[in-house]
Amino acid sequence: MAGDPLHEVEHLRVDAATARPGGRTARVGEAVIDATIAELGEVGYTALRIDAVAERAGVNKSTIYRRWGTKAGLVSTAIIERRGEMAPAADTGRLRGDVVELLKQIRLSFQTPWIAALIRESRPRSADSAEMYELLDKFWPARFRASGAIIERAVERGELPADTDAHFLLEMISGPLYFHLLMLGRPLDDAFLERTADFVLKGAEAQ
Amino acid sequence: MAGDPLHEVEHLRVDAATARPGGRTARVGEAVIDATIAELGEVGYTALRIDAVAERAGVNKSTIYRRWGTKAGLVSTAIIERRGEMAPAADTGRLRGDVVELLKQIRLSFQTPWIAALIRESRPRSADSAEMYELLDKFWPARFRASGAIIERAVERGELPADTDAHFLLEMISGPLYFHLLMLGRPLDDAFLERTADFVLKGAEAQ
Repeated sequence: MAGDPLHEVEHLRVDAATARPGGRTARVGEAVIDATIAELGEVGYTALRIDAVAERAGVNKSTIYRRWGTKAGLVSTAIIERRGEMAPAADTGRLRGDVVELLKQIRLSFQTPWIAALIRESRPRSADSAEMYELLDKFWPARFRASGAIIERAVERGELPADTDAHFLLEMISGPLYFHLLMLGRPLDDAFLERTADFVLKGAEAQ
Repeated sequence: MAGDPLHEVEHLRVDAATARPGGRTARVGEAVIDATIAELGEVGYTALRIDAVAERAGVNKSTIYRRWGTKAGLVSTAIIERRGEMAPAADTGRLRGDVVELLKQIRLSFQTPWIAALIRESRPRSADSAEMYELLDKFWPARFRASGAIIERAVERGELPADTDAHFLLEMISGPLYFHLLMLGRPLDDAFLERTADFVLKGAEAQ
């Protein structure tokens, strides 16, 4: 059911028919999304229980099953609702400044409990991780879209070639941070972020 | 006890006094290291039990405790013994070829069960992960030393400046692969490896 577009459209219709802005349905929805994000941050996706979300939100768990279907459906919705927390990086007017701001934003996100939990549970795609990837395949595109703005602006200003592959460049920019923090266990100090930005931009400008 | 140099020296003395090449002590040691690497690959470090290693190796667990002290001590020793599996990348005679070979070697290592297990359990350094970092702080330097040879050769050939920071460059080269596979869940096909090599080398040559 989760991931079935028709099913999702039907939900939207039900919500539209029963919910008034600020009405009970909206309040319940907000409380459940808040509780889901909080539980995700505390215990991660694998250990997350609908029971615990229901208790935290003060709603009956049958309400959650009726409205969001499955655990994956509930957590996906919560991630999409909270994608606002992945705001586009600040516009400094120059590519280098924007990249450094983006790297600082990534560093901050490692300290956002629900994002840290998703990252902690990430692993290569396999049958075992299929349910996690229902979430991650919603999370990463939202994140790349938010960060892509800095590449578009740089192309408009002529700082990068028009045919720059934004997704690839963002992988080259952010990959070293994940490796440095999560694999080597080293701190992400400003000097490392700036050095990474300078290195990658030399590569990007030379393409 | 593990990590205490005097304790380790004492162990070496005992081993030297009782072991002949191919003797019983050497055979037990090899069986225990083999069993440790196999268990590490199957269940990971956190779930690894000395009991299971002893059973697999066909030795009494008191033998393991006497010789290696703790789980961390045992697994560290096994990693150091097996660092040969992290062989230096092939010498192709050119930096680009060497970097592509290194990236292929990293891709292969994701399929080596004991290395995949270490990577799966890696996370930011904290009080909770201190025991894991007893291992990782032995694993990564061995790995960087093995890979560093390609940078040294490139400097000798004049393909890279003499003051190239090999460690930093290796982080820039390998970071995107970890991100691509472990976070995005995307396949590491040859095209991605070659594109990554070309991008990073443009950056390195432009420094």
